[in-house]
Amino acid sequence: MPADGAVRILALDGIPEIRRGDDLAGAIGDAIDRTPDALPLTDRDVVVVTQKIVSKAEGAVVDLTTIVPGEEAVAFAARYDRDPRQVQVVLDQAVRVVRMANGVVITETPHGFVCANGGVDASNVGPGSGSIVTLLPRDPDASAAGIRAGIRARFGRDVPVIVSDSFGRPWRWGIVDVAIGVSGLLPLEDLRGMPDADGRVMHATVRAVADELASAAELAFGKSTGRPVAIIRGASFMRGEGSIRDVVMAREFDLFP
Amino acid sequence: MPADGAVRILALDGIPEIRRGDDLAGAIGDAIDRTPDALPLTDRDVVVVTQKIVSKAEGAVVDLTTIVPGEEAVAFAARYDRDPRQVQVVLDQAVRVVRMANGVVITETPHGFVCANGGVDASNVGPGSGSIVTLLPRDPDASAAGIRAGIRARFGRDVPVIVSDSFGRPWRWGIVDVAIGVSGLLPLEDLRGMPDADGRVMHATVRAVADELASAAELAFGKSTGRPVAIIRGASFMRGEGSIRDVVMAREFDLFP
Repeated sequence: MPADGAVRILALDGIPEIRRGDDLAGAIGDAIDRTPDALPLTDRDVVVVTQKIVSKAEGAVVDLTTIVPGEEAVAFAARYDRDPRQVQVVLDQAVRVVRMANGVVITETPHGFVCANGGVDASNVGPGSGSIVTLLPRDPDASAAGIRAGIRARFGRDVPVIVSDSFGRPWRWGIVDVAIGVSGLLPLEDLRGMPDADGRVMHATVRAVADELASAAELAFGKSTGRPVAIIRGASFMRGEGSIRDVVMAREFDLFP
Repeated sequence: MPADGAVRILALDGIPEIRRGDDLAGAIGDAIDRTPDALPLTDRDVVVVTQKIVSKAEGAVVDLTTIVPGEEAVAFAARYDRDPRQVQVVLDQAVRVVRMANGVVITETPHGFVCANGGVDASNVGPGSGSIVTLLPRDPDASAAGIRAGIRARFGRDVPVIVSDSFGRPWRWGIVDVAIGVSGLLPLEDLRGMPDADGRVMHATVRAVADELASAAELAFGKSTGRPVAIIRGASFMRGEGSIRDVVMAREFDLFP
């Protein structure tokens, strides 16, 4: 779908505190009803949902009071003033520890994501929940598909959905939101072999459009606003049955293993 | 400046082919005049300009017919079906070669960026310019400052400016646009010590907001549309005299050297 040069990002109003078992698609539908200009949904829309409310709805949380940290977690946490139980959860969630240094544990998750603390997060978990951390959803593509199905059933419109999370990057300070699950769009748009604006064939251009959509949504969320869902309208992206597995680079291709 | 939950991205209409010595700020000003809804500029605007037109205006280009590739470039190019002269330019621009493999040369540029092919790019350089490649601007913060000054002089509004480029990432396929130069905004928004939505203090949240703004602008550009400049209106960011040097991670802090 070509962009016409104007994109809108609408952070949805009034998503309530989400708890295990809540109907997240229903809560997002209510918020769509409530947000000025959100309706009618269009063929140029994408919905971006932050990981934390997905994890909370799915019960992908751990109460740290149930965790007994092992020796490695205790030593690392003591050295860097961290909670050893949280470090233990990170290690428990990892299929591979990439690096432990400077107070950060970089792991590879079962999804293949390489990220700080394995996506285990203590912020914004909910009032009075000091000992609760969220894990990544078990199957974020399926989480996205469930929300997509709920929106389609309610509004009669098939809107692609992205589940997003904040990841750090090598070589650059700061975190950006990226996609960790998708449904209904191609997370990579492969322009190789397409002519560019000068008619020259582009060799190396694969747009990571789902990641850019996730980052764009964050600009409307801010960080402390309690707005965890946005509609992006009019962006340049391609529909299709993509998976976040398309984005994850197998270790043998990676120049930075 | 708080977001009100709605962000607009306007790709500017009618930026002409840019050549060495052209008044880029003037061309952007003309495009602002021409683009519906761009005026009046507001205090919530950021202008994002892609690297290529900045490099062209500044003459940061190389004609490959003037390059005699050395032995290393010839061998690498032969193995991966690349232009040895372009590989030589990449090596010439590098302060450090991080990795050469799979047909990709990852280098550190004089700015401190670690990226594929050192930001040397052959696509979208201009009609009939088969042998021309663009380099990164020498001082992208200064490039951004010049455009910002031109817009302020013409429209009486101090609008922050980002110069963007498309970079690949470790561990994930595809490229995303990031900031390579900034003027008038803080590229990192440090939320450490701020309370989150639950009143909990956030420990590790530094938003790389300039990179997210660059990625968001790309969603309005598409790849072949000839729209290399966008205004983003209403995003959550902080004004200030930031530099892209704030984003570049010194090697001693990087967990992935």
